[in-house]
Amino acid sequence: MQDMINRQFYLASRPAAEPTSEEVPFRDVPLCEPEQGEVVIRNMYISLDPAIRGWMSDLSNYIEPIEIGEPIRSSVIGRVVKSNSEQLSEGDVVLAVGAWERYTTAQAAAVTRLDESAGIPLSSFLGIIGPTGLTAYFGLLDVGKPQAGETVLVSAAAGAVGSTVGQIAKLKGCRVVGIAGSDDKCAWITDELGFDDAINYKTCGDLEAAIRGACPQGVDIYFDNVGGDILDAALMCMNKHARIAVCGWISTYNEADAPGPRNLWQMVAKSLKVQGFVVIDYVDRFAEGIEQLAEWLMAGKLQYREEIVDDLDNILPTFLKLFDGSNQGKLITRIPEESV
Amino acid sequence: MQDMINRQFYLASRPAAEPTSEEVPFRDVPLCEPEQGEVVIRNMYISLDPAIRGWMSDLSNYIEPIEIGEPIRSSVIGRVVKSNSEQLSEGDVVLAVGAWERYTTAQAAAVTRLDESAGIPLSSFLGIIGPTGLTAYFGLLDVGKPQAGETVLVSAAAGAVGSTVGQIAKLKGCRVVGIAGSDDKCAWITDELGFDDAINYKTCGDLEAAIRGACPQGVDIYFDNVGGDILDAALMCMNKHARIAVCGWISTYNEADAPGPRNLWQMVAKSLKVQGFVVIDYVDRFAEGIEQLAEWLMAGKLQYREEIVDDLDNILPTFLKLFDGSNQGKLITRIPEESV
Repeated sequence: MQDMINRQFYLASRPAAEPTSEEVPFRDVPLCEPEQGEVVIRNMYISLDPAIRGWMSDLSNYIEPIEIGEPIRSSVIGRVVKSNSEQLSEGDVVLAVGAWERYTTAQAAAVTRLDESAGIPLSSFLGIIGPTGLTAYFGLLDVGKPQAGETVLVSAAAGAVGSTVGQIAKLKGCRVVGIAGSDDKCAWITDELGFDDAINYKTCGDLEAAIRGACPQGVDIYFDNVGGDILDAALMCMNKHARIAVCGWISTYNEADAPGPRNLWQMVAKSLKVQGFVVIDYVDRFAEGIEQLAEWLMAGKLQYREEIVDDLDNILPTFLKLFDGSNQGKLITRIPEESV
Repeated sequence: MQDMINRQFYLASRPAAEPTSEEVPFRDVPLCEPEQGEVVIRNMYISLDPAIRGWMSDLSNYIEPIEIGEPIRSSVIGRVVKSNSEQLSEGDVVLAVGAWERYTTAQAAAVTRLDESAGIPLSSFLGIIGPTGLTAYFGLLDVGKPQAGETVLVSAAAGAVGSTVGQIAKLKGCRVVGIAGSDDKCAWITDELGFDDAINYKTCGDLEAAIRGACPQGVDIYFDNVGGDILDAALMCMNKHARIAVCGWISTYNEADAPGPRNLWQMVAKSLKVQGFVVIDYVDRFAEGIEQLAEWLMAGKLQYREEIVDDLDNILPTFLKLFDGSNQGKLITRIPEESV
């Protein structure tokens, strides 16, 4: 396979703020034959997630940073083009931990074969029944522990995770209020997804007052995707013994010196539980989550949006849409078959 | 009882910073006869606790602030001098929610009679087997859930709560490291209380490095009494799935605009649980806690220090010792019997 070229984006230096093409350039390298037990995957879909920004930073103790010189790690879906393993054949479609690259070489034992015949769109394995759906499922149900009748507040509510959190909370009988950054997004989550109310944080004025207005019984669970000022406002509206599931603080990822939340004293005043989690904490229960999410999805009870952008070469500007809120749902780079 | 005078300290206006004698002055008011079901208690011991500072502030949603004009709420121990209830007799010693005052009038049903004959020093019902001991007991055991062999880090470790937390953690088989503000305090917790190590945060230099040095296996439970920079340093040293029990953030109580912790992103990186609590959350289990604490105390397994300051008139400057760290253990104002 030495005559085949693998284009890959890699980490040249650690970004202090928004990553640039100097910090994340590409290179074309020859593709090597798979070692014993390995397969070479031609990537079709590359998942773009906020967590990748964290892996680019060398924050001490952070889970598995990307090393300098390594390709940018991502979940990928692709087709096996060369197999040196009895577990997989050429032509199999698999889900793998790959990178921002055309070809990923992986241990066959570490990838998941997908069944194309089940009628589930392949890209949904990167989203609604993949990491983002599982993040919503376990974060809401295991960390938040919603009871019917409780009020659930979700930030980044039109995002891949937030929109799923709200729909699952509705399935569990909760009042659900979403916070999003445009009237279109607010209309989508209330009109299409069934949220009870939505707040446009850019135009609502006093956010704390807006949350109180939309949550007359107070907030029992806040599913926090963003941190920052929205967290501070939500903290002031929590009920006694409320729970905050912290999925990520995207608003601060590109700011090295972002101040911490000022209203955390509410934790003592209200006996709040604030719990961070990453979806990998629940790896032992992924099968349960995928089964339930797929069942809801096939029954028409879960909706989702994807923004699929063709062209590997533009993967960095596509990724940055996550941080200005301009993406519409789960963000994916696709490498069309003919261009591989 | 109209000829008897009750001196009481009350809230004239809400302090923005350290409370002054203008904000918390005293007044002498005539004592009224107890209504049906009430008793009048001549206070002997008044408990001085950091939480009282929170009650002086009008932070929206805060639990039960002290209203302007009301006496400063405190736990008290005193002797019934007039009873209008069949439940209590004159001469009974009781624990009550009272105030910074010579006489407290309370519902007999809302006070707890103490048994002077059990040989337990009365003042300990305000501390080691009272609210501070129970705060340590439930915060460590129910929020922190320590396992033998884990590492427990405690701030304000020579304080009434922190010193008890550390001793209970040792009884549970943990490695225990305390953070305190003087070499004397550090020597006391290691030499007398059996802590494995102690850090003087005022002289240790890089606090994060000092914590790492004292906790070579990382921190599994951080019992946080102070917030601020110490919390930020501790956050960097937590193990995956570690727990932070937030008892109060005394370092910020007198600062209206204190910044929040900067390193909370560790919550997601390490799947941390950060839980605020107040001892009253566990009121249904107080009997269990008091029984266990009294058993340990009588068996010589728990030590404690009290700083008992005579003179009600100096109660405000005595209270402020809590905030500069100059008190030595549980702080109590005593009103000697002859001066009542």
